[in-house]
Amino acid sequence: MLLPERTVERLSEYRRSLLQWLEEGKTHIYSHELAALHHNTAVQVRRDIMFIGYTSMQRKGYDVKELVGVIEETLDSKKGLNVAVIGVGNLGKAITTYFVGKRSKLNIIATFDVDTNKIDRVMSGVKCYPMNRLGEIIRSENISIAIMTVPVDAAREVAKQLVEEGIRGILNFTTAPLRVGPDVYLEEYDMVTSLEKVAYFVKMADR
Amino acid sequence: MLLPERTVERLSEYRRSLLQWLEEGKTHIYSHELAALHHNTAVQVRRDIMFIGYTSMQRKGYDVKELVGVIEETLDSKKGLNVAVIGVGNLGKAITTYFVGKRSKLNIIATFDVDTNKIDRVMSGVKCYPMNRLGEIIRSENISIAIMTVPVDAAREVAKQLVEEGIRGILNFTTAPLRVGPDVYLEEYDMVTSLEKVAYFVKMADR
Repeated sequence: MLLPERTVERLSEYRRSLLQWLEEGKTHIYSHELAALHHNTAVQVRRDIMFIGYTSMQRKGYDVKELVGVIEETLDSKKGLNVAVIGVGNLGKAITTYFVGKRSKLNIIATFDVDTNKIDRVMSGVKCYPMNRLGEIIRSENISIAIMTVPVDAAREVAKQLVEEGIRGILNFTTAPLRVGPDVYLEEYDMVTSLEKVAYFVKMADR
Repeated sequence: MLLPERTVERLSEYRRSLLQWLEEGKTHIYSHELAALHHNTAVQVRRDIMFIGYTSMQRKGYDVKELVGVIEETLDSKKGLNVAVIGVGNLGKAITTYFVGKRSKLNIIATFDVDTNKIDRVMSGVKCYPMNRLGEIIRSENISIAIMTVPVDAAREVAKQLVEEGIRGILNFTTAPLRVGPDVYLEEYDMVTSLEKVAYFVKMADR
């Protein structure tokens, strides 16, 4: 059964809070506590968690460790997935540094750029390759996901290349809306839209 | 009338495409063309646009320039809004460079950091201030929106400070879920969740 996108998002967010909860030495959590951390309702939390087959909430709440385990089984792939970052500007650097070592099941193992000054450099343990080695490295390193942080003008061409070389999922940080075939999962994130959203609600609150 | 969050997101995305359309010298666009650019249906596009009071679709489609104008009036604040970036690491740098000059109605006019080496430096025309001048600069520069790119450990404290100093909207790029009062609009973006979402759908497609 394929979970809805929003459910996947929420489960990922719950896990983040649950791991923090564990770090703080807490072993149990109530649905309303988890809900409060995520601007959510306890009903929604219980529904999401029931959806992935975990129901053993007791008087003291969910067992945090167990729940993390169930979310892990649901979201993560057993062997882990290899990820490449395409475009090593400030954003590409931020993302690479940010992710390396953070989530053991998602490994950033290569970056790509067209700038010859960047090629062969190693950042946070990740090597930068030239774009003309994209297909070769995707295959040899078994990379299935690409994070796109290239300039907007290059976005469509790069996406086309990624799809041709067998990439299965793309996280697009450029402002260019992309089109990929049904075999590739595309997630687009536009910072301008997020900021415009904040600006709109600030403007409306000021009226 | 306050638009739903999703509608605001879509309008922002439409505008981006419409501006590109204009650049390419096209004067009209059909709802199904706009829909195709955004993985959307023509019905949804027409509903969104009707929602903001624009209905003059003719045989040749919407007048792109007019439509951009209506979206502008809906989303933008007339005087523009001033924005600060809190935390000048790679991500803060990427965001500042990215936004400066891009959207004339949203001006990044200050960055803040605790690192004394960064203070007083100017990047893309934007000066970096020490955190202890936060309140002063927010008031003197009339800053209403903050983009948070601080380390996760500092996130809660920084958010608290921002709210106390009168910030009206926060775009949170840290992985810490925040809580703010009802007077502050909070938009949270977690890169880990986006990547985990891509990974989940890639995993499920492989089954």
